[in-house]
Amino acid sequence: MTDIAPFHVMALLARAKELEAAGRSIIHMEIGEPDFPTAEPIVAAGQRALAAGHTRYTAAAGLPELRQTISDHYRERYGIEIPAQRILITPGASGALQLATAALINPGDRVLLADPGYPCNRHFVRLVEGRATGVPVGPETGYQLTAELVERHWDEQTTAVLLASPANPTGTAIAPEALAAIVATIEARGGRLIMDEIYHGLIYGAPVQTALAYSDQVLVVNSFSKYYGMTGWRLGWLVAPEDLVGTVEKLAQNLFLAASTPAQHAALAAFTPAAAAIFEARRREFLARRDFLLPALRELGFRIPVTPDGAFYLYADCGRFTDDSHGFALRLLEETGVAITPGIDFGGHLPHRHVRFAYTNAIPQLAEGVERLRRAL
Amino acid sequence: MTDIAPFHVMALLARAKELEAAGRSIIHMEIGEPDFPTAEPIVAAGQRALAAGHTRYTAAAGLPELRQTISDHYRERYGIEIPAQRILITPGASGALQLATAALINPGDRVLLADPGYPCNRHFVRLVEGRATGVPVGPETGYQLTAELVERHWDEQTTAVLLASPANPTGTAIAPEALAAIVATIEARGGRLIMDEIYHGLIYGAPVQTALAYSDQVLVVNSFSKYYGMTGWRLGWLVAPEDLVGTVEKLAQNLFLAASTPAQHAALAAFTPAAAAIFEARRREFLARRDFLLPALRELGFRIPVTPDGAFYLYADCGRFTDDSHGFALRLLEETGVAITPGIDFGGHLPHRHVRFAYTNAIPQLAEGVERLRRAL
Ligand SMILES: Cc1ncc(COP(=O)(O)O)c(C=O)c1O
Ligand SMILES: Cc1ncc(COP(=O)(O)O)c(C=O)c1O
Repeated sequence: MTDIAPFHVMALLARAKELEAAGRSIIHMEIGEPDFPTAEPIVAAGQRALAAGHTRYTAAAGLPELRQTISDHYRERYGIEIPAQRILITPGASGALQLATAALINPGDRVLLADPGYPCNRHFVRLVEGRATGVPVGPETGYQLTAELVERHWDEQTTAVLLASPANPTGTAIAPEALAAIVATIEARGGRLIMDEIYHGLIYGAPVQTALAYSDQVLVVNSFSKYYGMTGWRLGWLVAPEDLVGTVEKLAQNLFLAASTPAQHAALAAFTPAAAAIFEARRREFLARRDFLLPALRELGFRIPVTPDGAFYLYADCGRFTDDSHGFALRLLEETGVAITPGIDFGGHLPHRHVRFAYTNAIPQLAEGVERLRRAL
Repeated sequence: MTDIAPFHVMALLARAKELEAAGRSIIHMEIGEPDFPTAEPIVAAGQRALAAGHTRYTAAAGLPELRQTISDHYRERYGIEIPAQRILITPGASGALQLATAALINPGDRVLLADPGYPCNRHFVRLVEGRATGVPVGPETGYQLTAELVERHWDEQTTAVLLASPANPTGTAIAPEALAAIVATIEARGGRLIMDEIYHGLIYGAPVQTALAYSDQVLVVNSFSKYYGMTGWRLGWLVAPEDLVGTVEKLAQNLFLAASTPAQHAALAAFTPAAAAIFEARRREFLARRDFLLPALRELGFRIPVTPDGAFYLYADCGRFTDDSHGFALRLLEETGVAITPGIDFGGHLPHRHVRFAYTNAIPQLAEGVERLRRAL
């Protein structure tokens, strides 16, 4: 338990709420979830599911219709065939990450991760007595691992690599060819790739490709939380290789029993044209926010050397202002009411020189935040 | 992964559904969840929460109002004070069991469980490299551990005991004095008790007491699934000792992020008088079913030596008919359309001579099931 870190931003968030309760105006740029509520067609489907009495357990792997709908989605969006039977519905990407790591990792196994990266990943590995090795990444590789980095850090004990594209906290994606090379490198060594594609829909430049296009041996994690705007419903999915389906299914039975039934029924509406139109409008809004906030922060003196491809984060080098990003974030909160996340939540590689801005707030608020930062800095 | 067992009843359930799809009439007595849908006041509260846009993440520990409401519930129902801050909202009792086991158990630690018992428990222990030791229990001790059994099986490596009262698959409860003695025995050895009280509301005889009444060091698991009829919503809670609150909270942040938001809002309505009246009516209905099914099965020749105190299960010795309860259950399904759960799902102590009947079906169906069994046996 001593190896498991709490989210440091939570203390900051608590302080932000305290200040708000005391009447201070706070600009939230620390929160990693869309500010939009769940789209109306999904909410309506959830309400109908409740009215229809869909309140009992589903099978551990999820509603057959939803698994089939996601299978169809892979065909339509990526042009690939993933049988529904390989798709397991989970309690969020969180549940999928737990199934994938628990199924693959034995005590002592090493798992390579990008540092900075999503903080929970190393803890999923630690939970089952694996050893997460953060590989320092920077702007040179778009804050992502490369085939070359995987090769360099691989050793006898390494059995898996866990990546996200686009990633949290950097928003950067792995280009299709680079991803293909990573998959090939891992599989040549007999290892497995766990690929977190939770931010796949939220992409602003060149299209991303799913890792499933390059191998049927990867484990792909996804979620209804971010692009589909369903964070609080706790729903995601895992695509497992054929030979692991039985394994992850028995694990899901024992750890979760099943994912939320009303959420699963609601999620069926996420693949309708009405919902798609809302998601697309929201994606464009996030893009507009990125295109506002990125140059504004650069102008203030934050270094953001790589333009993020997706998600809703900017990972900024604040070395011009501080070498203590945690104290810096706390001070900014107290002095300006602007809440951001210190780098320490994302790993051990230069955390003290980085902060994360989330553009999960409308442009007028972001503009006010920038103005306050300008005055303070 | 080879140590993790799937639920064997799932194969049987799949076969039952196949038979049903082919037009056969199936009497379901294998299913461990109430046949009632979620009570109307809770459904309505869930729909209102969705309409109000309560669809984003809550704090990892849950909605403050819900934690406070549960704290009030401990005062009103048991007469004890549990500060809301010690109550964490989880994705089902499943989530609470995972937090409790992961927080307490180090690799190699031994955890004592009752055998037969809830099948997932040994897997939660196994997941974090602990060693679950099933202690064989029979009718002599009401299928429960006693202080004496804990003492006898405790060794240097033992650090915790995980019990349920009333239990699955036996429905038997631990009497207050016996529970107090168990707690004292464990704590005298420096160990911890994890107590699963998921079936606490569903009790038909003498009142049960929460383990929290005897110590503030126990970890109590509970859920909205069974008594509150919210299985598919995936909501439960953990009461943690003061000194473990920070630990389980950071674990919850990393593993789950949070429990379902609509479910948490809906669950607030579970503590209203309108909902309580529905739960009480359902409890009486379960009691009537037990009082119908128990003598009927005994008359058929099943040995059920201990009258269960709660839950909705009868754990029956079928030794008069077979020494292969799994084959017996499959044959009964094929020949009579009656679905029951073989003992093998609940542990290694005489599983081949036991089956579990769940009375999660109305009395006319139960009567039809008994009739079919009578003809077949
Ligand atoms: C990269 C990444 N993966 C997984 C998750 C977990 O999301 P959820 O469990 O809500 O699907 C998050 C949430 O912030 C994330 O940023
Ligand atoms: C004894 C016991 N504990 C825990 C659970 C898990 O229930 P849930 O996760 O739905 O709260 C069950 C479900 O059958 C059970 O019987």
